[in-house]
Amino acid sequence: MGIEIERKFLVKSISGLMPWQRSGLIPLTLRQGYLKNSKDVTVRIRTSDETGYITVKGPTKNASRKEFEYEIALAEAIEMLALCQDAIIEKKRYCMDYKGFRWEIDQFSGKNQGLVVAEIELSTPDEYFDKPPWLGREVTSDPRYCNACLATHPFQKW
Amino acid sequence: MGIEIERKFLVKSISGLMPWQRSGLIPLTLRQGYLKNSKDVTVRIRTSDETGYITVKGPTKNASRKEFEYEIALAEAIEMLALCQDAIIEKKRYCMDYKGFRWEIDQFSGKNQGLVVAEIELSTPDEYFDKPPWLGREVTSDPRYCNACLATHPFQKW
Repeated sequence: MGIEIERKFLVKSISGLMPWQRSGLIPLTLRQGYLKNSKDVTVRIRTSDETGYITVKGPTKNASRKEFEYEIALAEAIEMLALCQDAIIEKKRYCMDYKGFRWEIDQFSGKNQGLVVAEIELSTPDEYFDKPPWLGREVTSDPRYCNACLATHPFQKW
Repeated sequence: MGIEIERKFLVKSISGLMPWQRSGLIPLTLRQGYLKNSKDVTVRIRTSDETGYITVKGPTKNASRKEFEYEIALAEAIEMLALCQDAIIEKKRYCMDYKGFRWEIDQFSGKNQGLVVAEIELSTPDEYFDKPPWLGREVTSDPRYCNACLATHPFQKW
């Protein structure tokens, strides 16, 4: 079990380019759905390229939540995605380092096309980090941006 | 992923003794709860003595359902039991062989005290097997006896 402490931000282009367009980074392709999707508990099935995961997360308190993640066979993850309620979320994930921190930039597609968010994992909710120039408004506390919420209320319907 | 094909029966005593009282078998102690508990999907957390499991099951059709089970750390299973909705199911499980088949006899405690059921796993729903003398009425198709249902509507409240 881990404690996940994350802050989440929108991403803006600089001179018309999104951060991954300057970097040549190759993204992971993520597909994920939810077997259980409530405020108190989520059970997420994810494929990340050729790897499958099942992940249980507890309720969020002060930007942190308990997380239990297990790697599973890709074929089983694909079968369980078919059991998921709501929509399947699809996104490209670019992992970028900036001044000692790892950023995950998610470029959504499908029903969440147009949404791009960047997440940083911290050791404490108030840990200091330098903000990259492409970082936009913080949305950590806005429930619309949680992935489980995007499955039921996708960005294109906001 | 496996396909689980099970038939379930009540258990009766013979000359006042339940089957495990003749056998000297040592049971497993099972505790289990449900992160998700619906007709279509269940996500079960279980501890069986010192081992933890997370198990996803699909909808039941003709006594069979898809099952995805993963062994996990006991400590993580215990933490996830605390996230489960509904009651935690507690039971002793005795595994007995009879004429080439493995029976699992579950003696419930807590809010399901008094309930004893025996399950047999088959290769096809109509596979032939010999019935042990302690086997009672079949309850495969009675939804009250599914463990996920016993979590929300325990035997003592029937």
